[in-house]
Amino acid sequence: MLGYDEKYKRYLTQIDCALDGYLNETDTAYQSVISAMRYSALGAGKRVRAILLIEFCKACGGTEQLAMPFACALEMIHAYSLIHDDLPCMDNDELRRGKPSCWKAFGETTALLAGDGLLTKAFEAAAGSTAPAECALRATLELAQNAGTGGMLGGQVIDLEGEGKPVDEVHLLQMYSMKTGALINAAAKIGCILAGVGEEKINLAHRYAEKIGLAFQIVDDILDVAGDQETLGKPIGSDVQSEKTTFATLHDLEYARNKALRLTKEAREILNEFTMEDEFLYELTDRLAVREN
Amino acid sequence: MLGYDEKYKRYLTQIDCALDGYLNETDTAYQSVISAMRYSALGAGKRVRAILLIEFCKACGGTEQLAMPFACALEMIHAYSLIHDDLPCMDNDELRRGKPSCWKAFGETTALLAGDGLLTKAFEAAAGSTAPAECALRATLELAQNAGTGGMLGGQVIDLEGEGKPVDEVHLLQMYSMKTGALINAAAKIGCILAGVGEEKINLAHRYAEKIGLAFQIVDDILDVAGDQETLGKPIGSDVQSEKTTFATLHDLEYARNKALRLTKEAREILNEFTMEDEFLYELTDRLAVREN
Repeated sequence: MLGYDEKYKRYLTQIDCALDGYLNETDTAYQSVISAMRYSALGAGKRVRAILLIEFCKACGGTEQLAMPFACALEMIHAYSLIHDDLPCMDNDELRRGKPSCWKAFGETTALLAGDGLLTKAFEAAAGSTAPAECALRATLELAQNAGTGGMLGGQVIDLEGEGKPVDEVHLLQMYSMKTGALINAAAKIGCILAGVGEEKINLAHRYAEKIGLAFQIVDDILDVAGDQETLGKPIGSDVQSEKTTFATLHDLEYARNKALRLTKEAREILNEFTMEDEFLYELTDRLAVREN
Repeated sequence: MLGYDEKYKRYLTQIDCALDGYLNETDTAYQSVISAMRYSALGAGKRVRAILLIEFCKACGGTEQLAMPFACALEMIHAYSLIHDDLPCMDNDELRRGKPSCWKAFGETTALLAGDGLLTKAFEAAAGSTAPAECALRATLELAQNAGTGGMLGGQVIDLEGEGKPVDEVHLLQMYSMKTGALINAAAKIGCILAGVGEEKINLAHRYAEKIGLAFQIVDDILDVAGDQETLGKPIGSDVQSEKTTFATLHDLEYARNKALRLTKEAREILNEFTMEDEFLYELTDRLAVREN
Protein backbone atom coordinates (compact mmCIF):
# COMPACT_ATOMS: atom_id res chain seq x y z
CA MET A 1 0.00 0.00 0.00
CA LEU A 2 1.22 3.51 -0.84
CA GLY A 3 2.20 5.89 1.96
CA TYR A 4 0.47 9.27 2.29
CA ASP A 5 3.05 11.29 0.36
CA GLU A 6 3.32 8.76 -2.45
CA LYS A 7 -0.45 8.51 -2.83
CA TYR A 8 -0.80 12.30 -2.74
CA LYS A 9 1.86 12.68 -5.44
CA ARG A 10 0.17 10.01 -7.54
CA TYR A 11 -3.10 11.93 -7.28
CA LEU A 12 -1.40 15.17 -8.34
CA THR A 13 0.02 13.42 -11.43
CA GLN A 14 -3.27 11.73 -12.34
CA ILE A 15 -5.31 14.92 -11.95
CA ASP A 16 -2.84 16.97 -13.97
CA CYS A 17 -2.82 14.34 -16.69
CA ALA A 18 -6.63 14.26 -16.85
CA LEU A 19 -6.84 18.08 -16.85
CA ASP A 20 -4.28 18.16 -19.66
CA GLY A 21 -6.60 15.90 -21.65
CA TYR A 22 -9.44 18.43 -21.33
CA LEU A 23 -7.18 21.37 -22.25
CA ASN A 24 -5.35 20.04 -25.30
CA GLU A 25 -7.29 21.69 -28.11
CA THR A 26 -4.89 22.25 -30.97
CA ASP A 27 -6.81 24.71 -33.20
CA THR A 28 -4.20 27.46 -33.55
CA ALA A 29 -6.81 30.15 -34.25
CA TYR A 30 -7.66 30.54 -30.55
CA GLN A 31 -4.48 29.24 -28.89
CA SER A 32 -3.99 32.39 -26.80
CA VAL A 33 -6.94 31.54 -24.58
CA ILE A 34 -6.03 27.84 -24.39
CA SER A 35 -2.49 28.79 -23.29
CA ALA A 36 -3.87 31.04 -20.56
CA MET A 37 -6.28 28.31 -19.41
CA ARG A 38 -3.43 25.80 -19.24
CA TYR A 39 -1.17 28.30 -17.45
CA SER A 40 -3.71 28.72 -14.65
CA ALA A 41 -5.14 25.20 -14.41
CA LEU A 42 -2.13 22.90 -14.82
CA GLY A 43 0.90 22.03 -12.72
CA ALA A 44 0.00 23.88 -9.53
CA GLY A 45 -2.47 23.91 -6.69
CA LYS A 46 -3.07 21.54 -3.81
CA ARG A 47 -5.97 19.82 -5.66
CA VAL A 48 -7.81 19.48 -2.35
CA ARG A 49 -11.23 19.60 -4.03
CA ALA A 50 -10.40 17.02 -6.69
CA ILE A 51 -8.80 14.64 -4.19
CA LEU A 52 -11.72 14.92 -1.76
CA LEU A 53 -14.11 14.10 -4.59
CA ILE A 54 -12.14 11.04 -5.67
CA GLU A 55 -11.66 9.81 -2.08
CA PHE A 56 -15.38 10.12 -1.24
CA CYS A 57 -16.29 8.37 -4.48
CA LYS A 58 -13.98 5.47 -3.60
CA ALA A 59 -15.20 5.42 0.01
CA CYS A 60 -18.71 4.84 -1.40
CA GLY A 61 -17.64 2.02 -3.70
CA GLY A 62 -16.89 4.08 -6.84
CA THR A 63 -13.68 4.30 -8.86
CA GLU A 64 -11.10 6.97 -9.71
CA GLN A 65 -12.16 6.73 -13.34
CA LEU A 66 -15.78 7.48 -12.42
CA ALA A 67 -14.74 10.45 -10.29
CA MET A 68 -12.13 12.03 -12.55
CA PRO A 69 -14.29 14.13 -14.94
CA PHE A 70 -15.95 15.87 -11.99
CA ALA A 71 -12.65 16.12 -10.09
CA CYS A 72 -11.28 18.00 -13.12
CA ALA A 73 -14.46 20.08 -13.36
CA LEU A 74 -14.03 21.26 -9.76
CA GLU A 75 -10.38 22.16 -10.32
CA MET A 76 -11.29 24.10 -13.48
CA ILE A 77 -13.96 26.02 -11.55
CA HIS A 78 -11.47 26.75 -8.78
CA ALA A 79 -8.91 27.95 -11.36
CA TYR A 80 -11.49 30.18 -13.12
CA SER A 81 -12.45 31.78 -9.81
CA LEU A 82 -8.80 32.60 -9.04
CA ILE A 83 -8.25 34.11 -12.51
CA HIS A 84 -11.29 36.39 -12.21
CA ASP A 85 -10.51 37.22 -8.54
CA ASP A 86 -7.05 38.45 -9.52
CA LEU A 87 -8.31 40.80 -12.30
CA PRO A 88 -7.68 44.54 -11.85
CA CYS A 89 -11.41 45.24 -11.36
CA MET A 90 -11.45 42.66 -8.54
CA ASP A 91 -8.47 42.16 -6.17
CA ASN A 92 -5.90 43.49 -8.65
CA ASP A 93 -3.40 40.78 -7.66
CA GLU A 94 -0.25 40.50 -9.75
CA LEU A 95 0.99 37.35 -8.06
CA ARG A 96 -0.62 33.92 -7.74
CA ARG A 97 1.08 30.76 -6.48
CA GLY A 98 4.45 32.51 -6.67
CA LYS A 99 4.19 33.45 -10.36
CA PRO A 100 2.50 36.28 -12.30
CA SER A 101 -1.29 36.03 -12.13
CA CYS A 102 -3.08 35.14 -15.38
CA TRP A 103 -3.94 38.73 -16.39
CA LYS A 104 -0.39 39.86 -15.58
CA ALA A 105 1.00 37.11 -17.85
CA PHE A 106 -1.58 37.22 -20.69
CA GLY A 107 -3.37 40.58 -20.41
CA GLU A 108 -6.82 41.34 -19.05
CA THR A 109 -8.83 40.37 -22.13
CA THR A 110 -7.31 36.92 -22.47
CA ALA A 111 -7.52 36.32 -18.70
CA LEU A 112 -11.22 37.22 -18.65
CA LEU A 113 -11.90 34.79 -21.51
CA ALA A 114 -9.65 32.10 -19.99
CA GLY A 115 -11.77 32.22 -16.82
CA ASP A 116 -14.96 31.99 -18.87
CA GLY A 117 -13.42 29.14 -20.87
CA LEU A 118 -12.48 27.15 -17.77
CA LEU A 119 -15.93 27.61 -16.22
CA THR A 120 -17.58 26.39 -19.42
CA LYS A 121 -15.10 23.53 -19.89
CA ALA A 122 -15.89 22.37 -16.36
CA PHE A 123 -19.48 21.69 -17.42
CA GLU A 124 -18.27 20.07 -20.63
CA ALA A 125 -16.24 17.65 -18.49
CA ALA A 126 -19.18 17.08 -16.13
CA ALA A 127 -21.78 16.48 -18.85
CA GLY A 128 -19.31 14.24 -20.71
CA SER A 129 -19.14 11.90 -17.70
CA THR A 130 -19.77 8.22 -18.34
CA ALA A 131 -21.43 7.73 -14.95
CA PRO A 132 -25.10 6.59 -15.08
CA ALA A 133 -26.99 9.57 -16.55
CA GLU A 134 -29.17 10.16 -13.44
CA CYS A 135 -26.05 10.34 -11.24
CA ALA A 136 -24.10 12.49 -13.68
CA LEU A 137 -27.00 14.93 -14.10
CA ARG A 138 -27.52 15.30 -10.36
CA ALA A 139 -23.77 15.76 -9.86
CA THR A 140 -23.76 18.46 -12.57
CA LEU A 141 -26.62 20.25 -10.80
CA GLU A 142 -24.70 20.07 -7.50
CA LEU A 143 -21.65 21.52 -9.25
CA ALA A 144 -23.59 24.46 -10.72
CA GLN A 145 -25.48 25.22 -7.51
CA ASN A 146 -22.29 25.28 -5.44
CA ALA A 147 -20.33 27.35 -7.97
CA GLY A 148 -23.04 29.95 -8.60
CA THR A 149 -24.85 32.76 -6.80
CA GLY A 150 -26.14 30.40 -4.09
CA GLY A 151 -22.58 29.18 -3.46
CA MET A 152 -19.04 30.31 -4.27
CA LEU A 153 -19.99 33.30 -6.41
CA GLY A 154 -22.55 34.62 -3.93
CA GLY A 155 -19.93 34.27 -1.19
CA GLN A 156 -17.50 36.26 -3.30
CA VAL A 157 -20.07 39.07 -3.63
CA ILE A 158 -20.72 39.10 0.13
CA ASP A 159 -16.97 39.20 0.75
CA LEU A 160 -16.44 42.15 -1.61
CA GLU A 161 -19.33 44.11 -0.14
CA GLY A 162 -18.04 43.55 3.40
CA GLU A 163 -14.65 45.17 2.76
CA GLY A 164 -14.07 48.16 5.02
CA LYS A 165 -17.36 47.54 6.88
CA PRO A 166 -17.84 46.02 10.33
CA VAL A 167 -18.78 42.35 9.83
CA ASP A 168 -20.24 40.15 12.60
CA GLU A 169 -19.52 36.45 13.04
CA VAL A 170 -22.87 35.23 11.68
CA HIS A 171 -22.33 37.17 8.48
CA LEU A 172 -18.71 36.02 8.25
CA LEU A 173 -19.65 32.36 8.65
CA GLN A 174 -22.34 32.63 5.95
CA MET A 175 -19.75 34.12 3.61
CA TYR A 176 -17.21 31.37 4.40
CA SER A 177 -19.69 28.56 3.94
CA MET A 178 -20.45 29.96 0.48
CA LYS A 179 -17.13 31.34 -0.74
CA THR A 180 -14.82 28.50 0.31
CA GLY A 181 -17.22 25.92 1.70
CA ALA A 182 -19.43 25.44 -1.36
CA LEU A 183 -16.84 23.85 -3.66
CA ILE A 184 -15.58 21.61 -0.84
CA ASN A 185 -19.18 20.64 -0.19
CA ALA A 186 -19.63 19.90 -3.90
CA ALA A 187 -16.48 17.74 -3.85
CA ALA A 188 -17.61 15.50 -0.99
CA LYS A 189 -21.24 15.22 -2.13
CA ILE A 190 -20.50 14.64 -5.83
CA GLY A 191 -18.08 11.83 -4.93
CA CYS A 192 -20.94 10.05 -3.15
CA ILE A 193 -23.55 10.87 -5.82
CA LEU A 194 -21.41 9.40 -8.60
CA ALA A 195 -20.99 6.18 -6.66
CA GLY A 196 -24.78 5.92 -6.50
CA VAL A 197 -25.19 5.77 -2.70
CA GLY A 198 -28.29 6.94 -0.79
CA GLU A 199 -29.15 10.26 0.86
CA GLU A 200 -27.80 9.23 4.27
CA LYS A 201 -24.23 8.95 3.01
CA ILE A 202 -24.58 12.12 0.94
CA ASN A 203 -25.70 13.99 4.07
CA LEU A 204 -22.75 12.68 6.06
CA ALA A 205 -20.41 13.89 3.31
CA HIS A 206 -22.17 17.27 3.47
CA ARG A 207 -21.61 17.52 7.24
CA TYR A 208 -17.96 16.54 6.86
CA ALA A 209 -17.51 19.19 4.17
CA GLU A 210 -19.10 21.94 6.27
CA LYS A 211 -16.60 21.32 9.05
CA ILE A 212 -13.52 20.88 6.91
CA GLY A 213 -14.49 23.80 4.66
CA LEU A 214 -14.70 26.17 7.61
CA ALA A 215 -11.46 24.82 9.11
CA PHE A 216 -9.78 25.33 5.73
CA GLN A 217 -10.86 28.98 5.56
CA ILE A 218 -9.88 29.68 9.17
CA VAL A 219 -6.39 28.31 8.45
CA ASP A 220 -6.25 30.60 5.39
CA ASP A 221 -7.07 33.54 7.67
CA ILE A 222 -4.39 32.50 10.18
CA LEU A 223 -1.80 32.18 7.41
CA ASP A 224 -2.61 35.67 6.14
CA VAL A 225 -1.73 36.99 9.61
CA ALA A 226 1.03 34.64 10.69
CA GLY A 227 2.17 32.74 7.58
CA ASP A 228 5.45 32.89 5.69
CA GLN A 229 5.25 34.85 2.44
CA GLU A 230 7.67 32.58 0.58
CA THR A 231 5.98 29.32 1.61
CA LEU A 232 2.57 30.83 0.79
CA GLY A 233 3.61 32.15 -2.61
CA LYS A 234 1.63 35.36 -2.04
CA PRO A 235 1.97 38.47 0.14
CA ILE A 236 0.78 38.18 3.75
CA GLY A 237 -1.06 40.82 5.75
CA SER A 238 -3.41 41.70 2.89
CA ASP A 239 -6.55 41.20 5.02
CA VAL A 240 -5.35 43.56 7.75
CA GLN A 241 -4.19 46.07 5.13
CA SER A 242 -7.59 46.14 3.40
CA GLU A 243 -9.30 46.32 6.83
CA LYS A 244 -11.07 43.07 6.10
CA THR A 245 -12.75 41.18 8.92
CA THR A 246 -11.61 37.55 9.04
CA PHE A 247 -11.87 34.83 11.68
CA ALA A 248 -8.29 35.64 12.67
CA THR A 249 -8.94 39.38 13.11
CA LEU A 250 -12.32 38.86 14.83
CA HIS A 251 -10.71 36.49 17.36
CA ASP A 252 -7.12 35.98 18.49
CA LEU A 253 -4.87 33.46 16.72
CA GLU A 254 -5.03 30.98 19.60
CA TYR A 255 -8.83 30.89 19.45
CA ALA A 256 -8.79 30.54 15.66
CA ARG A 257 -6.25 27.68 15.78
CA ASN A 258 -8.30 25.81 18.39
CA LYS A 259 -11.48 26.25 16.38
CA ALA A 260 -9.80 24.82 13.26
CA LEU A 261 -8.48 21.85 15.25
CA ARG A 262 -11.87 21.14 16.85
CA LEU A 263 -13.63 21.22 13.47
CA THR A 264 -11.00 18.91 12.05
CA LYS A 265 -11.52 16.43 14.89
CA GLU A 266 -15.29 16.44 14.31
CA ALA A 267 -14.83 15.97 10.56
CA ARG A 268 -12.48 13.07 11.25
CA GLU A 269 -15.16 11.34 13.32
CA ILE A 270 -17.66 11.54 10.47
CA LEU A 271 -15.19 9.67 8.27
CA ASN A 272 -15.68 6.63 10.52
CA GLU A 273 -19.08 6.18 8.85
CA PHE A 274 -17.36 5.43 5.54
CA THR A 275 -15.33 2.39 4.49
CA MET A 276 -11.83 3.58 3.61
CA GLU A 277 -9.22 1.51 1.81
CA ASP A 278 -6.49 3.26 3.86
CA GLU A 279 -5.85 6.16 6.27
CA PHE A 280 -5.28 8.70 3.47
CA LEU A 281 -8.44 10.79 3.91
CA TYR A 282 -7.95 10.93 7.70
CA GLU A 283 -4.43 12.20 7.21
CA LEU A 284 -5.47 14.70 4.53
CA THR A 285 -8.15 16.00 6.91
CA ASP A 286 -5.55 16.48 9.66
CA ARG A 287 -3.02 18.11 7.37
CA LEU A 288 -5.49 20.70 6.06
CA ALA A 289 -5.62 22.11 9.60
CA VAL A 290 -1.86 22.36 10.09
CA ARG A 291 -0.76 23.34 6.57
CA GLU A 292 1.60 26.23 5.89
CA ASN A 293 0.36 27.17 2.42
CA MET B 1 -54.52 29.49 -34.12
CA LEU B 2 -52.35 32.45 -33.10
CA GLY B 3 -50.90 34.72 -35.79
CA TYR B 4 -47.13 35.20 -36.01
CA ASP B 5 -46.96 38.39 -33.98
CA GLU B 6 -49.24 37.08 -31.25
CA LYS B 7 -47.32 33.81 -30.95
CA TYR B 8 -44.01 35.69 -30.91
CA LYS B 9 -45.25 37.99 -28.15
CA ARG B 10 -46.54 35.02 -26.18
CA TYR B 11 -43.09 33.40 -26.43
CA LEU B 12 -41.40 36.60 -25.21
CA THR B 13 -43.70 36.67 -22.18
CA GLN B 14 -43.26 32.96 -21.40
CA ILE B 15 -39.47 33.10 -21.71
CA ASP B 16 -39.22 36.23 -19.56
CA CYS B 17 -41.44 34.65 -16.95
CA ALA B 18 -39.35 31.45 -16.87
CA LEU B 19 -36.09 33.45 -16.71
CA ASP B 20 -37.53 35.49 -13.88
CA GLY B 21 -38.10 32.22 -12.01
CA TYR B 22 -34.41 31.35 -12.29
CA LEU B 23 -33.27 34.82 -11.22
CA ASN B 24 -35.48 35.48 -8.21
CA GLU B 25 -33.07 34.71 -5.36
CA THR B 26 -34.03 36.90 -2.45
CA ASP B 27 -30.96 36.63 -0.16
CA THR B 28 -30.19 40.31 0.33
CA ALA B 29 -26.51 39.67 1.09
CA TYR B 30 -25.64 39.33 -2.61
CA GLN B 31 -28.48 41.27 -4.24
CA SER B 32 -26.12 43.53 -6.20
CA VAL B 33 -25.10 40.70 -8.51
CA ILE B 34 -28.66 39.36 -8.83
CA SER B 35 -29.86 42.85 -9.81
CA ALA B 36 -27.18 43.07 -12.49
CA MET B 37 -28.03 39.60 -13.80
CA ARG B 38 -31.72 40.53 -13.99
CA TYR B 39 -30.90 43.88 -15.64
CA SER B 40 -29.07 42.11 -18.47
CA ALA B 41 -31.15 38.96 -18.88
CA LEU B 42 -34.75 40.12 -18.48
CA GLY B 43 -37.14 42.22 -20.54
CA ALA B 44 -35.07 42.63 -23.69
CA GLY B 45 -33.58 40.72 -26.58
CA LYS B 46 -35.13 38.98 -29.54
CA ARG B 47 -34.94 35.56 -27.82
CA VAL B 48 -34.12 33.96 -31.17
CA ARG B 49 -32.10 31.16 -29.56
CA ALA B 50 -34.75 30.28 -26.99
CA ILE B 51 -37.57 30.35 -29.54
CA LEU B 52 -35.64 28.19 -32.03
CA LEU B 53 -35.01 25.64 -29.27
CA ILE B 54 -38.68 25.50 -28.28
CA GLU B 55 -39.87 25.33 -31.89
CA PHE B 56 -37.50 22.47 -32.79
CA CYS B 57 -38.48 20.60 -29.65
CA LYS B 58 -42.16 20.91 -30.59
CA ALA B 59 -41.45 20.01 -34.23
CA CYS B 60 -39.95 16.73 -32.90
CA GLY B 61 -42.92 15.92 -30.69
CA GLY B 62 -41.72 17.59 -27.46
CA THR B 63 -43.40 20.29 -25.36
CA GLU B 64 -42.68 23.89 -24.36
CA GLN B 65 -42.34 22.75 -20.77
CA LEU B 66 -39.65 20.23 -21.72
CA ALA B 67 -37.75 22.85 -23.73
CA MET B 68 -37.99 25.81 -21.34
CA PRO B 69 -35.06 25.13 -18.93
CA PHE B 70 -32.64 24.86 -21.86
CA ALA B 71 -34.27 27.80 -23.67
CA CYS B 72 -33.55 29.88 -20.55
CA ALA B 73 -30.04 28.42 -20.29
CA LEU B 74 -29.25 29.59 -23.84
CA GLU B 75 -30.60 33.08 -23.17
CA MET B 76 -28.54 33.31 -19.97
CA ILE B 77 -25.41 32.28 -21.86
CA HIS B 78 -26.18 34.83 -24.55
CA ALA B 79 -26.68 37.53 -21.90
CA TYR B 80 -23.42 36.61 -20.09
CA SER B 81 -21.49 36.85 -23.35
CA LEU B 82 -22.87 40.34 -24.03
CA ILE B 83 -22.01 41.52 -20.49
CA HIS B 84 -18.41 40.32 -20.77
CA ASP B 85 -18.09 41.58 -24.39
CA ASP B 86 -19.05 45.08 -23.28
CA LEU B 87 -16.46 45.29 -20.45
CA PRO B 88 -13.72 47.93 -20.74
CA CYS B 89 -11.03 45.27 -21.29
CA MET B 90 -13.08 43.88 -24.20
CA ASP B 91 -15.14 46.14 -26.53
CA ASN B 92 -15.55 48.92 -23.94
CA ASP B 93 -19.17 49.50 -24.98
CA GLU B 94 -21.24 51.85 -22.85
CA LEU B 95 -24.51 51.15 -24.64
CA ARG B 96 -26.43 47.89 -25.12
CA ARG B 97 -29.97 47.54 -26.46
CA GLY B 98 -30.42 51.30 -26.12
CA LYS B 99 -29.58 51.49 -22.42
CA PRO B 100 -26.33 51.62 -20.40
CA SER B 101 -24.37 48.38 -20.65
CA CYS B 102 -24.14 46.27 -17.48
CA TRP B 103 -20.73 47.58 -16.35
CA LYS B 104 -21.80 51.15 -17.05
CA ALA B 105 -24.87 50.65 -14.86
CA PHE B 106 -23.38 48.49 -12.07
CA GLY B 107 -19.61 48.92 -12.26
CA GLU B 108 -16.99 46.55 -13.67
CA THR B 109 -16.71 44.23 -10.66
CA THR B 110 -20.42 43.52 -10.43
CA ALA B 111 -20.71 43.15 -14.22
CA LEU B 112 -17.88 40.62 -14.30
CA LEU B 113 -19.55 38.57 -11.56
CA ALA B 114 -23.01 38.96 -13.12
CA GLY B 115 -21.64 37.41 -16.32
CA ASP B 116 -20.07 34.56 -14.35
CA GLY B 117 -23.32 34.14 -12.43
CA LEU B 118 -25.43 33.89 -15.59
CA LEU B 119 -23.07 31.38 -17.19
CA THR B 120 -23.20 29.21 -14.06
CA LYS B 121 -26.96 29.62 -13.65
CA ALA B 122 -27.41 28.43 -17.25
CA PHE B 123 -25.95 25.06 -16.28
CA GLU B 124 -28.04 25.02 -13.11
CA ALA B 125 -31.13 25.39 -15.31
CA ALA B 126 -29.89 22.74 -17.74
CA ALA B 127 -28.96 20.17 -15.09
CA GLY B 128 -32.24 20.85 -13.28
CA SER B 129 -34.20 19.78 -16.37
CA THR B 130 -36.89 17.16 -15.88
CA ALA B 131 -36.29 15.62 -19.32
CA PRO B 132 -35.14 11.96 -19.30
CA ALA B 133 -31.64 12.02 -17.76
CA GLU B 134 -29.85 10.71 -20.89
CA CYS B 135 -31.44 13.45 -23.02
CA ALA B 136 -30.82 16.18 -20.45
CA LEU B 137 -27.18 15.16 -20.00
CA ARG B 138 -26.49 15.08 -23.74
CA ALA B 139 -28.24 18.44 -24.14
CA THR B 140 -26.08 19.88 -21.33
CA LEU B 141 -22.95 18.62 -23.10
CA GLU B 142 -24.12 20.21 -26.36
CA LEU B 143 -24.70 23.48 -24.50
CA ALA B 144 -21.21 23.50 -22.95
CA GLN B 145 -19.45 22.50 -26.17
CA ASN B 146 -21.18 25.23 -28.17
CA ALA B 147 -20.63 27.92 -25.53
CA GLY B 148 -16.97 27.14 -24.85
CA THR B 149 -13.59 27.29 -26.58
CA GLY B 150 -14.75 25.01 -29.40
CA GLY B 151 -17.75 27.28 -30.02
CA MET B 152 -18.86 30.79 -29.09
CA LEU B 153 -15.91 31.63 -26.85
CA GLY B 154 -13.31 30.36 -29.34
CA GLY B 155 -15.05 32.42 -32.04
CA GLN B 156 -14.82 35.45 -29.80
CA VAL B 157 -11.06 34.93 -29.41
CA ILE B 158 -10.60 34.55 -33.19
CA ASP B 159 -12.64 37.73 -33.70
CA LEU B 160 -10.55 39.75 -31.23
CA GLU B 161 -7.27 38.52 -32.68
CA GLY B 162 -8.40 39.40 -36.21
CA GLU B 163 -9.02 43.09 -35.43
CA GLY B 164 -6.86 45.35 -37.58
CA LYS B 165 -5.44 42.38 -39.53
CA PRO B 166 -6.36 41.26 -43.06
CA VAL B 167 -8.85 38.37 -42.71
CA ASP B 168 -9.79 36.06 -45.60
CA GLU B 169 -13.22 34.58 -46.18
CA VAL B 170 -12.35 31.06 -44.94
CA HIS B 171 -11.12 32.49 -41.65
CA LEU B 172 -14.13 34.80 -41.37
CA LEU B 173 -16.60 31.97 -41.93
CA GLN B 174 -14.90 29.79 -39.29
CA MET B 175 -15.17 32.68 -36.84
CA TYR B 176 -18.86 33.26 -37.69
CA SER B 177 -19.78 29.60 -37.37
CA MET B 178 -18.27 29.62 -33.88
CA LYS B 179 -19.05 33.09 -32.53
CA THR B 180 -22.68 33.41 -33.64
CA GLY B 181 -23.39 30.03 -35.18
CA ALA B 182 -22.59 27.84 -32.19
CA LEU B 183 -25.43 28.98 -29.90
CA ILE B 184 -27.93 28.84 -32.76
CA ASN B 185 -26.67 25.35 -33.54
CA ALA B 186 -27.09 24.42 -29.87
CA ALA B 187 -30.66 25.79 -29.94
CA ALA B 188 -31.80 23.71 -32.89
CA LYS B 189 -29.99 20.51 -31.84
CA ILE B 190 -30.96 20.66 -28.15
CA GLY B 191 -34.62 21.09 -29.11
CA CYS B 192 -34.43 17.79 -31.01
CA ILE B 193 -32.32 16.01 -28.37
CA LEU B 194 -34.79 16.83 -25.59
CA ALA B 195 -37.66 15.42 -27.65
CA GLY B 196 -35.70 12.17 -27.89
CA VAL B 197 -35.54 11.88 -31.72
CA GLY B 198 -32.78 10.05 -33.65
CA GLU B 199 -29.53 11.30 -35.18
CA GLU B 200 -31.07 11.96 -38.59
CA LYS B 201 -33.36 14.69 -37.27
CA ILE B 202 -30.58 16.13 -35.09
CA ASN B 203 -28.34 16.38 -38.18
CA LEU B 204 -31.07 18.15 -40.15
CA ALA B 205 -31.44 20.65 -37.31
CA HIS B 206 -27.67 21.12 -37.37
CA ARG B 207 -27.71 21.87 -41.14
CA TYR B 208 -30.61 24.30 -40.70
CA ALA B 209 -28.72 26.06 -37.90
CA GLU B 210 -25.51 26.41 -39.93
CA LYS B 211 -27.39 28.22 -42.67
CA ILE B 212 -29.56 30.41 -40.48
CA GLY B 213 -26.65 31.20 -38.16
CA LEU B 214 -24.52 32.47 -41.03
CA ALA B 215 -27.45 34.42 -42.50
CA PHE B 216 -28.05 35.97 -39.06
CA GLN B 217 -24.44 37.15 -38.78
CA ILE B 218 -24.35 38.50 -42.34
CA VAL B 219 -27.48 40.55 -41.60
CA ASP B 220 -25.73 41.85 -38.45
CA ASP B 221 -22.81 42.95 -40.64
CA ILE B 222 -25.14 44.64 -43.13
CA LEU B 223 -26.94 46.48 -40.31
CA ASP B 224 -23.63 47.76 -38.95
CA VAL B 225 -22.98 49.37 -42.35
CA ALA B 226 -26.48 50.33 -43.47
CA GLY B 227 -28.72 50.07 -40.39
CA ASP B 228 -30.51 52.78 -38.45
CA GLN B 229 -28.83 53.62 -35.12
CA GLU B 230 -32.09 54.25 -33.29
CA THR B 231 -33.80 51.05 -34.47
CA LEU B 232 -30.65 49.06 -33.68
CA GLY B 233 -30.20 50.52 -30.20
CA LYS B 234 -26.42 50.75 -30.70
CA PRO B 235 -24.02 52.89 -32.77
CA ILE B 236 -23.54 51.88 -36.41
CA GLY B 237 -20.27 51.94 -38.34
CA SER B 238 -18.28 50.39 -35.48
CA ASP B 239 -16.87 47.61 -37.69
CA VAL B 240 -15.55 50.03 -40.31
CA GLN B 241 -14.20 52.33 -37.58
CA SER B 242 -12.25 49.51 -35.91
CA GLU B 243 -11.06 48.32 -39.37
CA LYS B 244 -12.74 44.99 -38.79
CA THR B 245 -13.27 42.64 -41.71
CA THR B 246 -16.91 41.52 -41.96
CA PHE B 247 -18.94 39.87 -44.70
CA ALA B 248 -20.30 43.31 -45.59
CA THR B 249 -16.85 44.92 -45.89
CA LEU B 250 -15.31 41.93 -47.72
CA HIS B 251 -18.13 42.00 -50.29
CA ASP B 252 -20.58 44.71 -51.36
CA LEU B 253 -23.97 45.05 -49.64
CA GLU B 254 -25.86 43.64 -52.63
CA TYR B 255 -23.77 40.44 -52.56
CA ALA B 256 -24.16 40.14 -48.78
CA ARG B 257 -27.94 40.61 -48.96
CA ASN B 258 -28.27 37.95 -51.68
CA LYS B 259 -26.12 35.51 -49.73
CA ALA B 260 -28.32 35.96 -46.63
CA LEU B 261 -31.48 35.42 -48.70
CA ARG B 262 -30.10 32.30 -50.40
CA LEU B 263 -29.08 30.77 -47.05
CA THR B 264 -32.52 31.56 -45.66
CA LYS B 265 -34.21 29.84 -48.61
CA GLU B 266 -32.06 26.72 -48.11
CA ALA B 267 -32.77 26.70 -44.36
CA ARG B 268 -36.50 27.00 -45.11
CA GLU B 269 -36.35 23.89 -47.31
CA ILE B 270 -34.81 21.85 -44.49
CA LEU B 271 -37.81 22.74 -42.33
CA ASN B 272 -39.99 20.69 -44.70
CA GLU B 273 -38.45 17.58 -43.13
CA PHE B 274 -40.12 18.44 -39.79
CA THR B 275 -43.79 18.34 -38.82
CA MET B 276 -44.82 21.87 -37.82
CA GLU B 277 -48.04 22.79 -36.07
CA ASP B 278 -48.09 26.08 -37.97
CA GLU B 279 -46.04 28.36 -40.24
CA PHE B 280 -44.34 30.14 -37.34
CA LEU B 281 -40.80 28.76 -37.77
CA TYR B 282 -40.91 29.38 -41.54
CA GLU B 283 -41.87 32.98 -40.92
CA LEU B 284 -39.27 33.44 -38.17
CA THR B 285 -36.64 32.06 -40.56
CA ASP B 286 -37.68 34.58 -43.24
CA ARG B 287 -37.82 37.50 -40.84
CA LEU B 288 -34.30 36.89 -39.48
CA ALA B 289 -33.00 37.71 -42.97
CA VAL B 290 -34.95 40.96 -43.39
CA ARG B 291 -34.83 42.28 -39.81
CA GLU B 292 -33.81 45.84 -38.96
CA ASN B 293 -32.40 45.20 -35.49
